[in-house]
Amino acid sequence: MKRRRTRASGQHTDERVEKSKKVVLATTYRLLTKSGLSGVSVDEVSRRSGVAKTTIYRHWPSRESLLLDACSQLRTKPALPDTGKVGTDLEVLACGAAKRLQEPWSTVMPSIIDAAERDKHLALLQSQIHAQMRGAFIAAIERGQERGELPGSQDARELVASILGPILYRRFFSREPLNEEFAKNVVARALQAF
Amino acid sequence: MKRRRTRASGQHTDERVEKSKKVVLATTYRLLTKSGLSGVSVDEVSRRSGVAKTTIYRHWPSRESLLLDACSQLRTKPALPDTGKVGTDLEVLACGAAKRLQEPWSTVMPSIIDAAERDKHLALLQSQIHAQMRGAFIAAIERGQERGELPGSQDARELVASILGPILYRRFFSREPLNEEFAKNVVARALQAF
Repeated sequence: MKRRRTRASGQHTDERVEKSKKVVLATTYRLLTKSGLSGVSVDEVSRRSGVAKTTIYRHWPSRESLLLDACSQLRTKPALPDTGKVGTDLEVLACGAAKRLQEPWSTVMPSIIDAAERDKHLALLQSQIHAQMRGAFIAAIERGQERGELPGSQDARELVASILGPILYRRFFSREPLNEEFAKNVVARALQAF
Repeated sequence: MKRRRTRASGQHTDERVEKSKKVVLATTYRLLTKSGLSGVSVDEVSRRSGVAKTTIYRHWPSRESLLLDACSQLRTKPALPDTGKVGTDLEVLACGAAKRLQEPWSTVMPSIIDAAERDKHLALLQSQIHAQMRGAFIAAIERGQERGELPGSQDARELVASILGPILYRRFFSREPLNEEFAKNVVARALQAF
């Protein structure tokens, strides 16, 4: 009996632990989109989530590990479209990227890039986020090469730079309107040039 | 006589003030390239420069105004080349941008972009830095249009996005090698597509 009770109580503890971890991650993520990486402290997360600092540090040994965990939600891989034409696939991907870059999480991106300039853990996270973003484009291009729609000698990464480059530039550097029309034009021009 | 002495002493004060302002700005700039915008506090600038906090606040009413002043050094306008051909002018500008993006100050750029997401003063500074960077490209393109090298209907800003986009993307997003060859290829492809 004693054993059973202990197990049951252990299950409750696990659930409670999982719940508070979720609350902490969600709070961290909200704080990230509001104030960027530098605005997130364990103190502030504790205050806003109502979870004690000691509990937070039990799950994440450092502020950095908490940030990494919360940011890893940004590593969502876009789905690979399959319209049968490489140009249309790239259009779908480019419009999807442009759309996602207008969602709240996108404001976290510059703070990750900023931190990546100085912190090797965040540099790794940034490269993972980028790899996920670029992966679907590379796959679509390689499929187009296999089907003979694009020359096989084409450097897929250079073609992606011609598509994602102007889109990210508009979002973060020139801050001009980033709509479907622009994204489609960027793809058309990139394919024409290659 | 008394008046004269006062004036002389006033001049000395002015020189001393100018000197300590320069020291503070140089310290802030060094700290910026080392730790980004979020790593700069008036405390730290005071400690490293040896200039008292009260003196710093006498010249800059807030941390923000000090940052703005130190960052404004980044607003250097690239010279407009005049090789006689729009393609070569754009190559010179693109190679210059790629080179500058590998200098220490470029690590400050993402922290300005990050802050611009949330702070309207820094958003203004960021747009000024961008306008300076883009200005020479626009001027070169418009001159090419006047000479009939490029169609007049061409949106100069879209062409710049096709050139600066991939270059900034390589520097800050994919972190792949950013050399003259890449910059020249980017210009060639952009001109071909337009």
